[in-house]
Amino acid sequence: MKIIALDSSGLVASVAIVEDDNLIAEYNVQYKKTHSQTILPMLDELKKMVELDLGTVDAVAISKGPGSFTGLRIGSATVKGLAQALDIPVIEVGTLEGLACNLYGSSSLICPLMDARRGQVYTGLYGFEKNDTGFKLVTHLSERAVSIEEIIDEAVIKGRETGQDVIFLGDGVPVFKNVIKEKMSGPYSFAPAHMNRQRAAAFAHLAMDYYKEGKAVSCFDHAPEYLRLSQAERERNEGKRNKGSAY
Amino acid sequence: MKIIALDSSGLVASVAIVEDDNLIAEYNVQYKKTHSQTILPMLDELKKMVELDLGTVDAVAISKGPGSFTGLRIGSATVKGLAQALDIPVIEVGTLEGLACNLYGSSSLICPLMDARRGQVYTGLYGFEKNDTGFKLVTHLSERAVSIEEIIDEAVIKGRETGQDVIFLGDGVPVFKNVIKEKMSGPYSFAPAHMNRQRAAAFAHLAMDYYKEGKAVSCFDHAPEYLRLSQAERERNEGKRNKGSAY
Repeated sequence: MKIIALDSSGLVASVAIVEDDNLIAEYNVQYKKTHSQTILPMLDELKKMVELDLGTVDAVAISKGPGSFTGLRIGSATVKGLAQALDIPVIEVGTLEGLACNLYGSSSLICPLMDARRGQVYTGLYGFEKNDTGFKLVTHLSERAVSIEEIIDEAVIKGRETGQDVIFLGDGVPVFKNVIKEKMSGPYSFAPAHMNRQRAAAFAHLAMDYYKEGKAVSCFDHAPEYLRLSQAERERNEGKRNKGSAY
Repeated sequence: MKIIALDSSGLVASVAIVEDDNLIAEYNVQYKKTHSQTILPMLDELKKMVELDLGTVDAVAISKGPGSFTGLRIGSATVKGLAQALDIPVIEVGTLEGLACNLYGSSSLICPLMDARRGQVYTGLYGFEKNDTGFKLVTHLSERAVSIEEIIDEAVIKGRETGQDVIFLGDGVPVFKNVIKEKMSGPYSFAPAHMNRQRAAAFAHLAMDYYKEGKAVSCFDHAPEYLRLSQAERERNEGKRNKGSAY
């Protein structure tokens, strides 16, 4: 089975082509360009490098969110186009679960952090459990938008309960590093550079399982999962905008 | 600190640009092209994508071996050229240690396998231990060229001793998978696609530490570590070639 995986949910733009147990190609960039400038040229570069016949691709995987609203829309628009043109399904993978898979096989509690602005983080609490064929991602706390203090408290409680250390990763880490250092008790650390940001290849790992479990959707059914209202929706609900204006 | 890391020791061609805790860009390809066709165009692609000023790079990291003789020479020639032109040092990272770092923070015994031909694998046995700032790679068995049966025996003994499961990775896995399934006792698994091949970004992780420990070398002192004699040297020693022939 061959899939193309894309991620543009945060600061990173990431593309991977995976066939069964082989990562054929992967391209990750964390740079100040917008994803609309990077993600398609990156896919095109990989396609040329490995002489990919798009007709052999079985599905397109995408980090469905949470994350940057604009980033998620760019990613979703891209996979919708690809999936419709190639007549293949879309496999949606949660951004936080995908991030956690960077640390496949880790013995720690895994706490991905993405800056959600307005004093919140998109976060959750994950781990890996050994099974017959390797390691399986387990969710201790599912994805949520909360304050950094709230997730630190949850991580401390869970860590005490299981005796595990906590490892933080994601583009929220540099934003909240000082708060974590100040408030975190119990053993913890930060994932190093090669493990600490979104990798489409890690999303593809979960996507392979989801596909086998029949969890793919059609391009028409796919939509990002923002987890919160957009600023425009929030302001409309708060009555801050003129009811008649077009936005 | 900013480094460029390259790996061409096996089937994968891999380039990464890392600055401190940030993986700025990474490009990995596992395809039937030779590394002389891929590694420099890949670096050039990344350089353009992130508008890299080569003058800001502090060092070049390379997987020094063991691995494919031709692959190692292409990688070494490339970093020697870069390091001399930019007047920066070379940081040499063992291929097997670098592979093991794919599984940073893993609770398993890590057994990288590269097909060394002639009935042997390049291998070793590694793990991660928690320290104050995160996890540190520990070497249980250093790099060696042995039969697959020999390393399986060693892994079983070590696994019994420590109570850990064993996780195999590297491009030797598909070659020796059936032998492993037949001979391996105790819990074991194979690393998934996003963790199972060389990543220059993982080599950069060790390279950062080595640089701080003063372990960088000049471009003139760098040489690949083949771990075994080349076919030409072996045949000369066995008297199979004419002493006067140029090879």
